[in-house]
Amino acid sequence: MIYLDTSATTAMYPEIIDIIKKYAVDNYYNPSALYTNALNVAKDIKNAKQKILDILHGTGNIVFTASGTESDNMAIFGSKKFKDCKILISNVEHSAIYQCAKKLEAQGIQVEYVACDRFGIVDEDDFKAKLSSNVALVSIMHACNETGGVNDIEKLVKLTNQLAPRAIFHSDGVQAVCKMPINLNKLGVDLYTFSAHKFHGMKGVGGLYIKKGVNINPIIFGGGQENGLRSATENVSGIISTAYALEKTYKNLDIEKNKKIMNYLETSLRKIVPNCIINTDFQRSLSNILSFSVPNTRGEVLLHLLEDKGIIIGTGSACSAQKAHTRIPIALGLSKEYFDGMLRISIDNSTTFEEIELFVKEFDNCYKFLSNIMK
Amino acid sequence: MIYLDTSATTAMYPEIIDIIKKYAVDNYYNPSALYTNALNVAKDIKNAKQKILDILHGTGNIVFTASGTESDNMAIFGSKKFKDCKILISNVEHSAIYQCAKKLEAQGIQVEYVACDRFGIVDEDDFKAKLSSNVALVSIMHACNETGGVNDIEKLVKLTNQLAPRAIFHSDGVQAVCKMPINLNKLGVDLYTFSAHKFHGMKGVGGLYIKKGVNINPIIFGGGQENGLRSATENVSGIISTAYALEKTYKNLDIEKNKKIMNYLETSLRKIVPNCIINTDFQRSLSNILSFSVPNTRGEVLLHLLEDKGIIIGTGSACSAQKAHTRIPIALGLSKEYFDGMLRISIDNSTTFEEIELFVKEFDNCYKFLSNIMK
Repeated sequence: MIYLDTSATTAMYPEIIDIIKKYAVDNYYNPSALYTNALNVAKDIKNAKQKILDILHGTGNIVFTASGTESDNMAIFGSKKFKDCKILISNVEHSAIYQCAKKLEAQGIQVEYVACDRFGIVDEDDFKAKLSSNVALVSIMHACNETGGVNDIEKLVKLTNQLAPRAIFHSDGVQAVCKMPINLNKLGVDLYTFSAHKFHGMKGVGGLYIKKGVNINPIIFGGGQENGLRSATENVSGIISTAYALEKTYKNLDIEKNKKIMNYLETSLRKIVPNCIINTDFQRSLSNILSFSVPNTRGEVLLHLLEDKGIIIGTGSACSAQKAHTRIPIALGLSKEYFDGMLRISIDNSTTFEEIELFVKEFDNCYKFLSNIMK
Repeated sequence: MIYLDTSATTAMYPEIIDIIKKYAVDNYYNPSALYTNALNVAKDIKNAKQKILDILHGTGNIVFTASGTESDNMAIFGSKKFKDCKILISNVEHSAIYQCAKKLEAQGIQVEYVACDRFGIVDEDDFKAKLSSNVALVSIMHACNETGGVNDIEKLVKLTNQLAPRAIFHSDGVQAVCKMPINLNKLGVDLYTFSAHKFHGMKGVGGLYIKKGVNINPIIFGGGQENGLRSATENVSGIISTAYALEKTYKNLDIEKNKKIMNYLETSLRKIVPNCIINTDFQRSLSNILSFSVPNTRGEVLLHLLEDKGIIIGTGSACSAQKAHTRIPIALGLSKEYFDGMLRISIDNSTTFEEIELFVKEFDNCYKFLSNIMK
């Protein structure tokens, strides 16, 4: 099977099994307990946290959560609001941000939606125009999960600091982490989300980076774990394996190889579907995602035809794959005939040229087959 | 090592490693995706859900969360409130309920705290007296995590249905599940919490049972997984291994054996510390927890002395073990000299008589040693 949907999820590294054995079967102690065995586990968690901070060049804290979604929820709901404030998000944010913003909107907080270009990258002029002193929170994804488009977060943070000095700046880094070098200090973000299963860690583990000096409130209350910021018995194996997966995936990252693959993919797709729209601008995107839209075609049909050939691709965000959605195609400015035909190829460090060549061959066959039927 | 703190957490069953391999390394697909491999995973999740419902005799839905704490938060915050309503919780609820109630209180919702007896069991007269037509939510734990005391939830639900017909009834079953037979239909609860790592499942997985016909709101928003009730990529291995662990732990449950162990323990402790207070009433408690309080003694010191002998016991809830807390001893009506000396022995299906005999012998030694020092 050729798996080209790594933006949806990835296979866990098999070695993580040993970490799980170590912390769930052998040293299974509750890190909040008072005995030495438990305190040792708590220390290992602390070290994992520091390792992640070191790799991502962050100065502050990481709160471990159960998902990128929970981290995003914590950023949106836990960050402090003030009277008559507004919040800014981009109009292509993942639903984990978008739905939280909708919730705040329903509670009476003003939300403004920053436009993006046709590659899912925030329009800086629109962003600047929407900044004002009453902005309490900005949440702009680092890389778009649909198109791979990378926002210049460092620049957006600087603009925010100038024009909305009271604002907390959050970035959803779920797709960016392990796909490009991240320097949280340089980006200047206050809050930053990541999710372990996107880089070969376990499902059910996410994290929220909180810059030193930034205070946010918890959204889950109880025993006071994570310094009161996220109550629940710590997911020890999950946390420790996240640090492992992060380190290994960065070590294996070969952006140049990815770029070559993507370049070949783009050229091939344009040949096969001359009127397709490529939603990814490789000058300003991750090196591992290619989004394209085929006119007058249901992407799902192509997906299933390819599946029969042993090739798995995605249709935009897996999280909302099972619901008809037009928010993203509209935000990208696609015209109606392209709405249903959005497809996403996402690769990882293990993807080979041979796999991509096979994909291109089979995609060509499937598309021809479908075109003949639809004639 | 002799581990007598199973109420804090348990060792994961080693076979769960195979489940993790199957769903995280091999069939690692995102269950929200559209291809067959993903749909098969979604089907396996559905089957696991049904298996749990069958074992616990529930008719309704289970929403998988990341912890007992998150499930409790969902019950408290997600259940519908109305104007001028109040909520009832017991005064020995786990902090995952207590802190949520405090949060609601801060938001202006009236919270009443039902008294319990000295064994941590709800005072039914006080409960009845506090019920009224404006109660929107009742949350009473099934079994007390400190004392093991079991509430007669079936009776409390009936009283609630009579005297507070608009109320949602939630019970935190984190300690009860796999320690006693559970029949959710018979209990009549609307919502019920469980946590996998308390019965040899993975840490980072909890669940909230929602009775058929009961509607609650999500507390985490995003891609709309779990029928919109709990967004985030599903923790596939976590969910499927929970069903496995639940089934196996119930199969191995030997309440009679536990009772014999506890009876021996109680008799022995009374001999060693004649003025100790036993906080567990074995006629009305789980069979696997014994809580006792030693006067004028810091429980932590005894814990560490025993730890040096290779025996691990607990000091009440691990979740708040690292903070000085007097809420529970006060609720149990303990006098001040007993506040710091609360200890909890909790066993599981693998605990042997030999281990308990060794514990008694070493506890005797440690207590004598400590008494001599303190003379």
